[in-house]
Parts: sequence; C-alpha cells; structure tokens
Amino acid sequence: MRPGEGLDALMAPRSIAIIGASQDATKIGGRPVDLLRRYGYAGKIYPVNPKSDVVQGLQAYASVGALPEAPDLAIIAVDAERAPEAIEQCADRGVRSVVVFSSGFAELGEQGRAMQDRLQTAARRTGMRLLGPNCLGAVSIPERAIATFSIVLEHSMPAAGSLGIVSQSGNLGSYTMRMASDRGAGISRFMTTGNECDIDIADGIAWLARDPATKVILCCFEACRDAGRLIAALTEARDAGKPVVALKVGTSEAGQAAAASHTGAMAGSDAVFDALLARYGAVRVRSIEELIDLGHAASILLPDRLPKGPRLAVVTASGGFGVLLADAAQAVGLSLPELSEATQRAILELVPFASARNPVDATAQMSSRPDMLQKILSAVVADDRTDAIVLPLPFSLHMPRLRSVYMETLRYIRAQYPDRPVILCVEGPPDALAELHAMGYPTIASFDGCCAIVAALARLQALATAPRDAGQPAIAKAAPLVADAFRHELGAKAVLAEAGIPVLAEQLVLDADAAARAAREIGFPVVLKIASPDLPHKTEVGGVAVGLRSEEEVRQAHARMLARVADKAPRAAIDGVIVAPMAQGMSELILGGRIDPVFGPVVMVGLGGIFAEIVQDTAVQMAPVSETQAMAMLRSLKAFAVLDGARGRRRTDLEAAAKAIAALSRFAVAHVDEVSEIDINPLLLKAEGEGAVALDALLIPHDSKATRHH
Amino acid sequence: MRPGEGLDALMAPRSIAIIGASQDATKIGGRPVDLLRRYGYAGKIYPVNPKSDVVQGLQAYASVGALPEAPDLAIIAVDAERAPEAIEQCADRGVRSVVVFSSGFAELGEQGRAMQDRLQTAARRTGMRLLGPNCLGAVSIPERAIATFSIVLEHSMPAAGSLGIVSQSGNLGSYTMRMASDRGAGISRFMTTGNECDIDIADGIAWLARDPATKVILCCFEACRDAGRLIAALTEARDAGKPVVALKVGTSEAGQAAAASHTGAMAGSDAVFDALLARYGAVRVRSIEELIDLGHAASILLPDRLPKGPRLAVVTASGGFGVLLADAAQAVGLSLPELSEATQRAILELVPFASARNPVDATAQMSSRPDMLQKILSAVVADDRTDAIVLPLPFSLHMPRLRSVYMETLRYIRAQYPDRPVILCVEGPPDALAELHAMGYPTIASFDGCCAIVAALARLQALATAPRDAGQPAIAKAAPLVADAFRHELGAKAVLAEAGIPVLAEQLVLDADAAARAAREIGFPVVLKIASPDLPHKTEVGGVAVGLRSEEEVRQAHARMLARVADKAPRAAIDGVIVAPMAQGMSELILGGRIDPVFGPVVMVGLGGIFAEIVQDTAVQMAPVSETQAMAMLRSLKAFAVLDGARGRRRTDLEAAAKAIAALSRFAVAHVDEVSEIDINPLLLKAEGEGAVALDALLIPHDSKATRHH
Repeated sequence: MRPGEGLDALMAPRSIAIIGASQDATKIGGRPVDLLRRYGYAGKIYPVNPKSDVVQGLQAYASVGALPEAPDLAIIAVDAERAPEAIEQCADRGVRSVVVFSSGFAELGEQGRAMQDRLQTAARRTGMRLLGPNCLGAVSIPERAIATFSIVLEHSMPAAGSLGIVSQSGNLGSYTMRMASDRGAGISRFMTTGNECDIDIADGIAWLARDPATKVILCCFEACRDAGRLIAALTEARDAGKPVVALKVGTSEAGQAAAASHTGAMAGSDAVFDALLARYGAVRVRSIEELIDLGHAASILLPDRLPKGPRLAVVTASGGFGVLLADAAQAVGLSLPELSEATQRAILELVPFASARNPVDATAQMSSRPDMLQKILSAVVADDRTDAIVLPLPFSLHMPRLRSVYMETLRYIRAQYPDRPVILCVEGPPDALAELHAMGYPTIASFDGCCAIVAALARLQALATAPRDAGQPAIAKAAPLVADAFRHELGAKAVLAEAGIPVLAEQLVLDADAAARAAREIGFPVVLKIASPDLPHKTEVGGVAVGLRSEEEVRQAHARMLARVADKAPRAAIDGVIVAPMAQGMSELILGGRIDPVFGPVVMVGLGGIFAEIVQDTAVQMAPVSETQAMAMLRSLKAFAVLDGARGRRRTDLEAAAKAIAALSRFAVAHVDEVSEIDINPLLLKAEGEGAVALDALLIPHDSKATRHH
Repeated sequence: MRPGEGLDALMAPRSIAIIGASQDATKIGGRPVDLLRRYGYAGKIYPVNPKSDVVQGLQAYASVGALPEAPDLAIIAVDAERAPEAIEQCADRGVRSVVVFSSGFAELGEQGRAMQDRLQTAARRTGMRLLGPNCLGAVSIPERAIATFSIVLEHSMPAAGSLGIVSQSGNLGSYTMRMASDRGAGISRFMTTGNECDIDIADGIAWLARDPATKVILCCFEACRDAGRLIAALTEARDAGKPVVALKVGTSEAGQAAAASHTGAMAGSDAVFDALLARYGAVRVRSIEELIDLGHAASILLPDRLPKGPRLAVVTASGGFGVLLADAAQAVGLSLPELSEATQRAILELVPFASARNPVDATAQMSSRPDMLQKILSAVVADDRTDAIVLPLPFSLHMPRLRSVYMETLRYIRAQYPDRPVILCVEGPPDALAELHAMGYPTIASFDGCCAIVAALARLQALATAPRDAGQPAIAKAAPLVADAFRHELGAKAVLAEAGIPVLAEQLVLDADAAARAAREIGFPVVLKIASPDLPHKTEVGGVAVGLRSEEEVRQAHARMLARVADKAPRAAIDGVIVAPMAQGMSELILGGRIDPVFGPVVMVGLGGIFAEIVQDTAVQMAPVSETQAMAMLRSLKAFAVLDGARGRRRTDLEAAAKAIAALSRFAVAHVDEVSEIDINPLLLKAEGEGAVALDALLIPHDSKATRHH
C-alpha cells in the first residue's frame, strides 16, 4: 500500500471504541476515555467492557460486536495475550482502524514476533489499519481525537498548530509534543508507531504531507524497516513543500546496541540512514531541543521567509553576547559579513561608540532609547548583505518597560520588512513569547542553540530548492561472475574493469621467465604481487615487491617472494604472480561496496592511508548513485578541499573518481545476490584530466563472508 | 600585588557610597541605591549628590569629602569625563575600594586608554582597589552588598549559595547569575571586571578561592591580559579544592575580531588559553548553559561525590530515552559498561521484559510500582561497575502521584548509598527541583546536555587529583645567535642541534666537486638542497633533489638545481648547496615556536603532511614545557594512537619527539628577544628506540617578520 493511505479513520475518526475501557482514569484503559471526555472530543465514544454497563459515566458495551455502529477507530487496551482476539473481533465488526497499546510482541523475540504476526494477519484480512503494537497511539489535536494513554496530556492539552509529530518511540514522541507545546508551539497531529506491524513511520510522514493542518513534520526514528517506503514518504513531503526534521537515536555503538534490544528491529547503518535523509531533503538534528526549536521556527517562517543563505547579522546591546554569538555562528558554518558602509554609517551616527561591522554592538544605548533601537534595527534588517538577523534579548521580556519597547519596535520592523527573517534569542513569560510568535518571530531560548537553528533553517531552504535526485534507471541482475573474480585481485579487477572501473594493464605469470618477459612488455619499473585466494593481505606475507628496474631484479624478486610466501603461508594456494606497472598519482581513495541489512547495497568512498584511520572521513550512499551523486559524496569529505586543489596544489581527477564510484555502485546492485563486499584499496587518483586507477581490489562472495579475516 | 589581595572592602563592604546617586531608581546612579535598600543591605548607604539633601529617602551628601566616614566602597556612577575627578576625591577621602560603571575608556582606543590610565594612577596612589571601568560591578549575595546596576536584580535577588561568579563581560556575568538562580542554584558572589584597569579576573578567582562561602568558581573570559597572574589564581583555586569552570568567548576568527573591537584588549591565541586552563586545572565549557549546569552540579556533589571515572549507568522507564542517552554518553567519551550479572539478574527477576545490561530499560513498570523503582534503582546504584548513574524522569515531577513516588524513593537511595553520584535528567516545578538539590541530586533539564555534564564532572575530579605541573626551572636569556641561524636551514639546524634537537650530518658545499665528495663521505643515496636566506620554500624553485645514488647523479643534480634556481629566483642570494643523507622514518611531525602577544613564547606540535591541512590536529603550550608536558601534548593529538602503534603498526619514538619539543620550548624562551618564529618541518619520527631528526628548520628573527612570505 502506498505510504499514508487509509489513515483518515485513524487520524480523524468520527467514532472511537475503547476495548478494555476502565472506570479508573489512571489505568491504560481508563485514561483515553477520561481524556476524550475532558478535552471535548466531538465524535462518539464507545467504551467496551464486558463487566460494566457504564464506564466513566458513558454507556459501555459488552463487546465490539454489540456496538451500534462500526467505529472508525478502536483502541486496544488489553493485555498482549488478549490482543489478537480483540483485533479479530474488530476486523469482523468492520472497524476501520485500531491502535494497539499492548507491549509484549516482536520486541521480546521470536515468540512475541509470532504473536505480532497474528495481529497483522487479522488486520490485513479486512484492510483495517493497525497502529502499534507497543505504542503510545495517536492524537489529532484540532479534533481532540485522543487515542493515547501518554501522561503528557495529564495536566493540559497542547494548543492546536502546524507541527505534525510522528515517532517510533512513544516516549520520545510524547516528550517532544509536551516540550514543543511548553515552548509555545502548536501541534496538529501526533502519532507513535511502536513495533510497526502495519502502519509505519513512512505512513505517518506521507499522511502528514497531505494533511492541510500540518506545515512541518517532526520525526523521531529508532530504526528504518523499509527504505523504499521511507523514500517515497520523504519525497511526498518535499513535493508538498513540508520540511521534515528528523531526530534519529542509535547513532553510537552503545546506542545501537540499546536500540536493537529495545525495538527488536534490525539496525541498518546510521551513516546510510543519514545519507538517505539528506538525499531526500530531510534535515537531521541531534537533540530533542533542536528538533523542537527548528520545527517551531520553520513553522513560523514558512512559506517564504526561510534564510536564503548562510550570511548572518547579529545585533546586540552587549559586546559579550555579540562575541558569543559570533563564535557560535562560525562553529555551525554561518558567516558574519561586514555590513554595508551605509548601514555602518547609520549606526555610528546614532551611537558613536557602537561596533557597527557585525556583530553590531549598539551598547546599552540601544535598549534605553526606543527610537534608537528602531533605527538601528531598521538599518541592519534593511541591509541585504545578510540572509538572516539574530537579535538577542536577554532578560528584556521580564521587564515591563523593556518588553513594551521591544514589542512596539518589533511590530514596526515586521510591518516594514515583512520578508526578512529575524530570529530572537530570548526567554520570557509565555504570553510575551506567544505575542512574538504571532508577529512572525521565532524565539530560541538558548544562546548556544540559536545559531545552530539559523544554520538549519538555511539548510531547509537549500534542500527545498535543490535539484531533485533524478532517480536511477533500474539495474538488471547480472549473470554470475567467473570464479577468478573471487580468487585474487587480478580476477576481481577484470570484472570491475568490465563494469567501467579503470585498472592497470597487468599480467599473471607462472614462473620467473614469464615474469621477466611480462615486465619487459609492460616497461620498467614494475611491481610484483602474489596472486592467491588465501592471501587477501599480501604485504603481511612478503607478497609485494615494488620498484623493480630490470629483468634481473624481477627474477630475483620473484624467487624471493615465492620463498617468503612458502615460508609464511605454506598452505596457501598460489595462482601465480602478478606483474604490474608502477603507477604514480596524487591521492589514494578507498572505494567499497557492501550489503546493508536494511538499506541493501551501499557504496562508500573515503581518503586512504593514515587519514582513514584517524579521521572517519567517509561518505556512503544507497546504491546505485549517479556520477552527480558520487561527486556530492566526494564533496562531503573533509578532505575534499585537498583533492580539489587547495593551497596551490594541482586538482585531482575528481570526475574520474566519481565515474568509478558510480560504476562500482551499479556493479554492487547488479551482483547483489552474489557479492557481499567489494574493496578497492587504493583507487589511485591522478591529476585533473589524467584519470584514476584501481590498484588493488577484493570481492567477497556471500557464502565466504564468515571466513574472512580482517 | 598578589591576585585577590585587598578585595575585602569591595566584596564585603561595611559601608557603600554612591557617587552620582539619583532619585530615579531606573537610572544607573539610582538603581544601586534602590537595590541596596530594597534587598536589605545591613551596612551604611551614603548617596552622594551635590544637588539634593535626600536621595530615595536617604540623607545625601554633597561630596565624598563631606561623608561622615571613609566608606569601604564607593560606586562611581558618573560620566566618563567626570570619573577621574571622582576617583581622585575618593582616594583623598581614604575610600578603600571603588567600582566604576562608566564606559568610554580603553575600549574606545588611545584617547580612552589615556583617560583610563588616569583612573589607575589615582587609585594606585593610595592603594585603593578599583573595579572597572566599563563594568557591571559586584554583588555579595549573603551581605546584600549590591554594587551593580544590572537589570537582572530588578525582579528578584538570587538565593545565597556556593557559586561564585567572576566575569570580564558584565552582561555575560549577570545573565549567568540570573540563569543560575532561575535554575535553582545559589550564588555567593558576583564580580564583573570590565576593562580591568586595576582589579582583574585573576583577582576575582583568587579572592573566591579564599572565600568560605564559595565552593565552585564560574568564570566568563573575553581576554587574558596577564597570564602569570591567571596561573597564580588558578593554582590557588586548585590548592583550595575549588573547581574553576571557564567559559571563554572569542574562540572563532569572527568572535575574536568582535572581541577585539569590543574590549580593546589584545587577543592571545585561543588555543594557548585553552591549554593554559587545562594545565592549571580549570575545566573549559562552551556555552552559558553548560557553565551553569556544571557549576551547579559540582556544587551539589562536592566535596566527595564527583564521578571517579567515565563509566556511566543509565536507568530509564523508556527504551527511546535509553538509546538517546547512550548516544549522548558515547559522544562525550563516557562508557556504558554491562552491569554485573547479579545486578542484571535482580532487575530481570523484578521485570522479566526489562533490558538489564545498560542502559537499563525497566519499562513503564518502573514508574507504576514504587517498590519496583526502589529495588531496581538500588540494584543499579549499588553496582560498582559504574562511576555515576543517570536517571531521566521526563514529565514525572509534574504529576503529583509520580512526584511523591520518586521523592520517596530518591530519599531512600540517598540514605542507603550516600557516596554514589546519581544525576537526574529532569525538569519540573522549582520547588520539586529545590527539594532534589537539597537531597544531594544534581538536576539537568536537557537530555542533550546531561551526559556532557557528567563527563565534565568526571573531568573535574580527574583534574583535582592529577599530579601538579612541576613548574620549570627559570631559563636564562641566551647569547645572540650567529647570523647563519637566520640565513638557511643548515644554520638554523646547527643552533637547534646545540639546543638538543637531533639533526642529520649534513654539509654545505660550494661546487659540484665538493658536492660529490660530500656525498661519498655521507654515503648514497643523498639529498641536495639549495641554501639561501631568500628561499625558505626550496621546493617551489626546484631547490631540492632526492634519491641521488652516485657521484655522477649528484653532479648532474647540482648543475640542474643551480640552473633552475637561477632561472626561477635570479635575485636570490645563494650560500651554496646542502648535501644530506636520505633519512627513513615512520611519521612526520611539525614543531613550531612563536611569540604570542599575551602568553609570550609558545611551542606547537602537530602531525605533518596532508593531515595538518585537513584536520587542525595540533597541540600548543606556553613555553617552556617539560618532557612530561610535551608527552601530554603528543597524547592530546587525534593522531596519537597512530604514533603510539595502533593496529599492529610499530610504535614511533614518542620519547624522542617529546625531548625535541621540550628542547625547542626552552630554546624559544632563551631566545625570546631575538627569534619570533621557529619552524621544524618535518621532524622525522622513527620507530621506538630509533630517535627523531629535524630534516628542515627555519628561524625568523623579530625584525624580518613583516617580509616573510608564506
């Protein structure tokens, strides 16, 4: 089913049944009844409880079958053991969607997974959509359709607004809703998907993409179960002009181990997930705070006031804050360009002691004289040398006099410069913040976080306007590879060469005479390398000799090599010796391909050598990638500037590298059933226009993976 | 004067005069009078105003001379032009300390600096201590001695407590005070030093180190004006067992430019500042939030419950939060070791569906059953496989039922395990947080920040117990260097070799015959390098030839080199050609020395080659450094593991590198008046036990600095 289809009954139900409804409002089966009534849900509420006629003052029914109509939504608030039967009954009754709170399913292992499969089968039989199990349900704020038992609704209902929240983790999602609401953001819908036996996070994203009430989609991920559906949903959101802001937990080894034990889902690579989000236009954040602040700020600035670039102006009444914000801005990649001469002159005429370049330090004068504040701010906001303006207002909103000065000025600025994004770094009384939000000013409480949010807003804008990923033509499964491809580097390089990856003209020889002959044909100096399926790490057994300058040197090296290898690896099968030309280049890349358990074939590139070991400077993507995408991967490397010819160095042939990455990615897809891992190490990168060449390569078939030594 | 001396009259004054006292409580001269009265200062208040007999209901005096006694402290709240005279009068009257709010001094350039010098002269004449100018003054919270006009005291006075705050920036300091207070931290003293014409931040730190009311010292730095005084003050704080937590703004280029224009102080290197803080036991933080949270948490855990190491346990009722915290923990270098078998068994007996390894996910069961919470928490806290425990309690304190359950349990845990640090990740009503703080639990509102604070607490503990920096013997100024030291690398290396830095046996030759002879003596292969004071970058003019294997090759290379250099740099003075042996090593370091405008001679080390360009992986320290300190510098490099023999590589001779760094640092100090910059690039590092050798070196004298090309 296309992501997001069939969810209307869940997200905008006209009637809700609660299976296992309880008289006790603190119980899981009692809380939804209480919340629906307390917050004024306008639809029908049907408590189902075989033991009572009345639950919390409402008529109750003995069973789903006894209901006067088939409800749009049924909440299953019974134990795991009783859930399958309850779901069968809902399906029989023609219920259109169910929410299953109960835990004790796939997150507990095999037996639980079998139980969960029963839920899925029952739901799919009638096309009834199922949210959960092991979830905190869903809430539609405008309709007061509350299908959750989360305690975050205990003391108040969030205000209705334009942030849609979809989360795999119930607690992360509901904490996000609570905190966003506490910070003054309005919420449209809230959905937690739990074990995702039917409805998944892609459904949630896609449905919110079509939901008129939602402007920005906040997501909390723990795992990706289906990359294709996620891509489709992200694409739909992007096409709808709705930013997706994503928090994903489980980035670290420790976190992934915890996530695996908690969700029972397979962990795909976090790096691939990260690349996928960026490729399909979602912005990833690293904390709940950032998730909320960015989502809220974007909802205020949309549709047309997101910063168009990374150039920031900072206006402050205090030098110290200006310096702090300048540091923070630079740390997140924003620039603080010098303001125009006219702007600087205008500021200095008003406050001769000011710093007018940027950050503007207008001194305490600014806040003591309202007219001055308005003029200075106008000058800076009008200056189009920047893309966004940050105005810190520490403590000001707590002082009634200052508060009114700032409100008046900001109202004026908004009217005069309606298309300019001005972000306030401020905390204050909730009503003051609400007033600013209504005027169109995002507010960020943290000095530390403010610049990061501005940078992310600019990134949202860039993603929204970036050219779309063209999509790759389908790649057919290829015929099986020859056995030699898995035996030694020459075999591997032969098939990679056919796939479009440049290699050297090398020869496999069986004795010293042939080696000398091959060397003469190739031209000196040459390299000798042992060819053996048992020796992927040739250097360790003395299986490499470089810089051989004559036939005599080749013969001697050949003899020494065979003797050394025989000594160090007496049981290794030897296919011969490879004679190769010496190749000169500028940089060495490592290219790789492997199969991710979630994302399928992926391709990787990184700088080789000592660098790879110290700095984790690699880029990955789901395969296949186009040459354009491959170039974007190269561009994302920390080492890119060096490859691109920084500091008077010659530029390397990055185009050749991109071609090789794209070719490798297609190869990985075509041979996905046969090849589990591909290593090209190194791909020697020459100067611009001179190409690149794979010096060594290794292919590992699926079945031998367990025996590989690294 | 020793840092911190003579500040009692400022920080605990028995009487305060306000020069320029105003009837209007919103004016700079009116606010201190108002605040002193409003918050109940117990000492004498003397408004000074030539035009009124009464100010805000208090008897006023026409001049300082007319006061009935010489006050301990006078607040100067008059314009910059009138400040010098007011200070003269205070000095004449025998006032013991003054606070100068007025701005318009050194921060505005030369003329302002001259005015400021007058203040300093006036104060020093009688030993009167002066805080400011251009500052927000000082406050002693317990005494209600309020010598500030900061608006952060407008609506309430912070509670008295054990955090001392000293800040160069008035606004950063007062924002820190306000926010710390809002988060439930108590404050002892608050001091802002502004332009520091007399009292500096070192005075503040040292005074707080001796202040019985202060347990933790929070500092906001904009610049360092005197490294020696700062070191003395930090040392005093460390000896007193009081952690110093430091926020320094101006880390980025943009921030430094802003800071220079705002403070009028010279910018020393941020990296050296950073190294200085670490060397003398201060912990540096990167945001105001972290400054406050760390200081507050430390004040609660001191004296004996700071985490003894980086091993963290996380206990949560929600898997998602556990994963989030595991990610955050790993990102800041904390580990999450598996809990003991006994602990895991105890948890699983209570909650069979729990994840018991770490993070512990005790599921919603934990918060629904108080007895279970107590047992699970006891098991984890009792397990000594970890050094600290983090317990997230999202929304719980807002629910009366949950709040009482948690309070009771936490009271029990504190009583049972009084020496274990348990940090709560929680927000909630202020009275609930205050109750927890009083029980001995630090609370951190941000999930994102919580683990960073735990890591920093462990760092505080490590610094407190680390061996002290031994201090270096004084280094005498050396005799002037020979002229050749500045002419070419051979001259530079000759003097560095005398200073203890190993170099190769090289020869300077004047013609091809001599070159061939030298090569024979040295042994093939050899390297030729042009020797010229005008060609610091030899490669660019073809002034280097490597791998010469015979006399014939040497002669040819010599001729080609002279021809190429004559062609590319016809006006360069040529001293000859250097013949050097080919040296083989494992890694290349860059060593450097230079004069920082604030910190004096400093020494730098980093990994050479492409790495240096992409990753800013360098360590700096004020010179001189011991070999132990040099080794600590090497250890702080990202590349250290590689140098130390990671992944089966041979370890390099790090001891030889440390010796060279220490020798270079002593050389930099001995020749500080003559040498402005020293570059050793590369220092070739061989395998362990085989030494290191400087292959190239450059010394730049002070006077030629402007003409150097890079």
